[in-house]
Amino acid sequence: MSNERIITLTTDFGYKDPFVGEMKGVILSINPSVKLVDITHGIKPHSIEEGAFIIASSYKYFPPNTIHIVVVDPGVGSERRPIIVEADNHYFVGPDNGIFSYMVSFAEKSKVFHIKEKKYMLSEYSPTFQGRDIFAPVAAWLSKGIALEEFGYSIDDFKKIKIPLPEIEGNRISGEIIYIDRFGNAISNIKGTDLYALGEKFLVEIKGMVIQTVKNYSQASNKSLYCLINSSGHLEFFVNMDSASKLFNINKSEKVTALKQTK
Amino acid sequence: MSNERIITLTTDFGYKDPFVGEMKGVILSINPSVKLVDITHGIKPHSIEEGAFIIASSYKYFPPNTIHIVVVDPGVGSERRPIIVEADNHYFVGPDNGIFSYMVSFAEKSKVFHIKEKKYMLSEYSPTFQGRDIFAPVAAWLSKGIALEEFGYSIDDFKKIKIPLPEIEGNRISGEIIYIDRFGNAISNIKGTDLYALGEKFLVEIKGMVIQTVKNYSQASNKSLYCLINSSGHLEFFVNMDSASKLFNINKSEKVTALKQTK
Amino acid sequence: MSNERIITLTTDFGYKDPFVGEMKGVILSINPSVKLVDITHGIKPHSIEEGAFIIASSYKYFPPNTIHIVVVDPGVGSERRPIIVEADNHYFVGPDNGIFSYMVSFAEKSKVFHIKEKKYMLSEYSPTFQGRDIFAPVAAWLSKGIALEEFGYSIDDFKKIKIPLPEIEGNRISGEIIYIDRFGNAISNIKGTDLYALGEKFLVEIKGMVIQTVKNYSQASNKSLYCLINSSGHLEFFVNMDSASKLFNINKSEKVTALKQTK
Repeated sequence: MSNERIITLTTDFGYKDPFVGEMKGVILSINPSVKLVDITHGIKPHSIEEGAFIIASSYKYFPPNTIHIVVVDPGVGSERRPIIVEADNHYFVGPDNGIFSYMVSFAEKSKVFHIKEKKYMLSEYSPTFQGRDIFAPVAAWLSKGIALEEFGYSIDDFKKIKIPLPEIEGNRISGEIIYIDRFGNAISNIKGTDLYALGEKFLVEIKGMVIQTVKNYSQASNKSLYCLINSSGHLEFFVNMDSASKLFNINKSEKVTALKQTK
Repeated sequence: MSNERIITLTTDFGYKDPFVGEMKGVILSINPSVKLVDITHGIKPHSIEEGAFIIASSYKYFPPNTIHIVVVDPGVGSERRPIIVEADNHYFVGPDNGIFSYMVSFAEKSKVFHIKEKKYMLSEYSPTFQGRDIFAPVAAWLSKGIALEEFGYSIDDFKKIKIPLPEIEGNRISGEIIYIDRFGNAISNIKGTDLYALGEKFLVEIKGMVIQTVKNYSQASNKSLYCLINSSGHLEFFVNMDSASKLFNINKSEKVTALKQTK
Repeated sequence: MSNERIITLTTDFGYKDPFVGEMKGVILSINPSVKLVDITHGIKPHSIEEGAFIIASSYKYFPPNTIHIVVVDPGVGSERRPIIVEADNHYFVGPDNGIFSYMVSFAEKSKVFHIKEKKYMLSEYSPTFQGRDIFAPVAAWLSKGIALEEFGYSIDDFKKIKIPLPEIEGNRISGEIIYIDRFGNAISNIKGTDLYALGEKFLVEIKGMVIQTVKNYSQASNKSLYCLINSSGHLEFFVNMDSASKLFNINKSEKVTALKQTK
């Protein structure tokens, strides 16, 4: 059973090149019994922020002990370290560039290991593709039951990026758009739980407009801007059957405000 | 053996977001032995017509007892019901919005169940992502052998969309383009079997041009418009090594006519 | 164990249509135990050259006995033959149009079989989709242990394309760009081993500019053009965190020169 481990892959490699396929070949050469699942390879190139948000939203839908390889790695081949993170009963393998910041910050406890042991890497490795030459084989060996300590040394000075949390001051929450999805929905860093803490009634503002909050997409009239609490628990701006981002020119970093409505 | 069931996924979620990955995580958390196959996630956003056509063309290449999740779901979270369809020894899980119209219309017999039983859904579910919170877990439980009756109630007032069938009047077939593929080939709703019923000789017209019918792509001279009976049995317009859609401005809904040639 | 064979898929089918999904359905109908891995479906439509380069770069990361289906097939349905190639302990299934030229040219020994036996094809097959109707079922039967000789006849007049090798004359290597990846990196046909054969010091030129060679992407200052030996062993031109192809207008076939630096 321990051989039927799941390894997921999340990268900014896109779908045009054979990079992801090569990583899977390396993994299956070491552990043919593993189950491979793509989370996405459509992360914006070099966007550590986007990759960090995506893996933090998605990993928890997989069973405990899943191994997640995440490669958004502009510093590949430089001094930045390859690491394994254990957090919330999941394992994460990738570069020490902040991509695992959410898990390390929010998990009750987490361990981080600097990968050093060359016998768990490909024997010839390229400084430009550690996804294939380090992260893939390390994840494969991990899936075979090799203990974390075997790969290297525990560290506590790993890199964290600033997680874009909203500012909450009294009756006012100030946030921003952090992600635009395939449908043009604009997702903010304000959570439903933040909003409900304001009280039962609140106003949401973006681009100088007060936006009506509904429960689901089809409650919205066509071509108007609405918001709702989405499937990852975030306040999301949308246009029913169309792109909020395009129709209302809403992009990443756009400011969002929520105010308690006093009567 | 019953655990090695196949679950396919067909959606309009694209390849940029983690939505499909999250659905797979939910499925594997319930049934780790299932085999997951993507049919496509490139359905035109919100196009129930396109999704209905694609799943009807593709499901039959999978073995009997395959479970197909199909999510093109502009009405997610509204009153429209989640359903399971059994047809032609395959199972289909998705929204009751007409996406399974072909199977229900053309299978010798079919059963449709309204999914009601909450214990087969995720315990916390979002009104905006039933693909992850209802369809994925229901398909996973179905793959473990739970009987259809356990999920809810048999219904017969499910939604059907109008299937775009050609009109056949005497020696004339009037159809239309229903799909443009990645290569720019324009696929009509006229079937090879319809054409051959006209007789051995027939004329095909589109955009005021009479188009020569050939057997395969490489019989066509470069940059001219030709047609053939394609791999799904439909009359398809193409340009050898180029895009018929772009070069001849052929889009969905373009009218197509076939006439019996009397000498 | 022999049933847990890996079949990879490499095509120019893209991600919009259900073509790849249908091929997988056919394979699993014949051998449900096989492991399916996508290398890429983003090959430039009809580009045999690109497909040949990609499969030659990638296959070796998979374990011996892997079966690779490669379908970039502008001549589908014509007289061009369907073939199986055995080379370097891997198996390749696809059209006889030169797509396997690298393996046949560089493997120590290789065998090529013309696929003739109809019982290993789908019973109704379309002249426009041999990927689904011939290559997929043949690969599936091959994965079940059917001997190569059962599929057809050994041939030695298979098609080879001209492999774009660099010209090496004394102290000068003349090559060209053969591939642009998702990040806009421009990959040449000059190999690291070619360069090092010139000696320790060499000059690299493209578009009239002498380009500095570094070890990894992050050694490069922003927005300038650099080169390095990439993860497939080729001389690659890049801009750190941006697209070399776009910023410097470098496309396929662009000439590249390397010169020995005498002092």
